[in-house]
Amino acid sequence: MKLTIEPLTHEAFAPFGDVIDCDGAARHYTINEGYAERYHDLATIDVAADGGRPLVNIFRAKPRMLPLRITMLERHPLSSQAFIPLAPVPFVVVVATPGPAPQPRDIRCFKTRGAQGVNYARGIWHFPLIALEPAQDFLVIDRGGQGENCDVVDYSELILVG
Amino acid sequence: MKLTIEPLTHEAFAPFGDVIDCDGAARHYTINEGYAERYHDLATIDVAADGGRPLVNIFRAKPRMLPLRITMLERHPLSSQAFIPLAPVPFVVVVATPGPAPQPRDIRCFKTRGAQGVNYARGIWHFPLIALEPAQDFLVIDRGGQGENCDVVDYSELILVG
Repeated sequence: MKLTIEPLTHEAFAPFGDVIDCDGAARHYTINEGYAERYHDLATIDVAADGGRPLVNIFRAKPRMLPLRITMLERHPLSSQAFIPLAPVPFVVVVATPGPAPQPRDIRCFKTRGAQGVNYARGIWHFPLIALEPAQDFLVIDRGGQGENCDVVDYSELILVG
Repeated sequence: MKLTIEPLTHEAFAPFGDVIDCDGAARHYTINEGYAERYHDLATIDVAADGGRPLVNIFRAKPRMLPLRITMLERHPLSSQAFIPLAPVPFVVVVATPGPAPQPRDIRCFKTRGAQGVNYARGIWHFPLIALEPAQDFLVIDRGGQGENCDVVDYSELILVG
C-alpha cells in the first residue's frame, strides 16, 4: 500500500501531538518592548515519568529518498519527543493512531510546510526522522533518565511513502 | 563604555550557561541506522523549581540596530532559558557574571556563528533577545508555572554594544 502524504495542520495532527509553528499558535503576545512576539506554549513536553528530565539535542539527518518503505514504527512509552528543523525546510512525518499494535491502515503521513516542527505525544507510534535535504539539523527535545523507552513494531507488508 | 563583541565559544560562555551547537558537543553518536547523528544533551533545562514545567515557544524577533544601548539586564531566578535560531543566522548575546547586581564592567557580549543557540543558566543576568535580521524566529525553552520569575536591573551609564 502507498500512504497519502497530507499537509501538516494542527487539526489533522491533533491525535498525535503538537504542531510547533507560529501560524497556528493559539496564544501570542508582544514582549521586549515590541522587539519580539512570543508564540506561547506550543508543545506538551511530557518527560517527567520515572524521574525523567528534558534533554535538548540536535539530530543531523541524512536525507531519505522517496518512495520510502516503512518497515517499522517506534514509540517512546515514557516521553514525548519534539523535532524542530533548524532551517525552514520541509520534512516528512509518519505516525500511527494510538494503540498497542497499529495496522498498516492506521498509518498516516504528513509533510511539513517548512517553518514547522512536531512534538509526538508520549506513546505515539512514529517512523524515525525523515529529512529530505542533505545535512538537515533538527532540534530534538526528549527525555533523559532510567527505564526502557523505545518499543518497536515491524511490518512485512509493503508500505510506501511518496 | 563600549562592550567588546566576542565570538561565542563553549569555553567563554561556560560561566553563563550552555552553547547549543554540533561542533562543540561533547557527545554524539549515530542512530536511525545511519540516517542521523545525535548530538546529545546540549543544555541543562532547569525549570522544575516550585512546580515549574518546560515551555516551548517561538519568539519572532524584530532586528536591533547596532550600536545598541544596554539600559537594563534581566534574570529568571526560577529557571534557565534557551534560545535557538530557526535559521542559521548570527545573533548577539549580552550577559553578566553571576551576582546580585552586576556592574557595567561585569557585562560580556558574544556574537553567535549562525548555527548556534544559547541556554542561560538559572539566574544569569542577560539583555533581551538581540536579533540582527528581519523577522528572525527563535525556539525558546523556558518555564511555565507559578512564582515571580523576572528580576530587572537598570543602568543609567552609557553602555554600548557594537
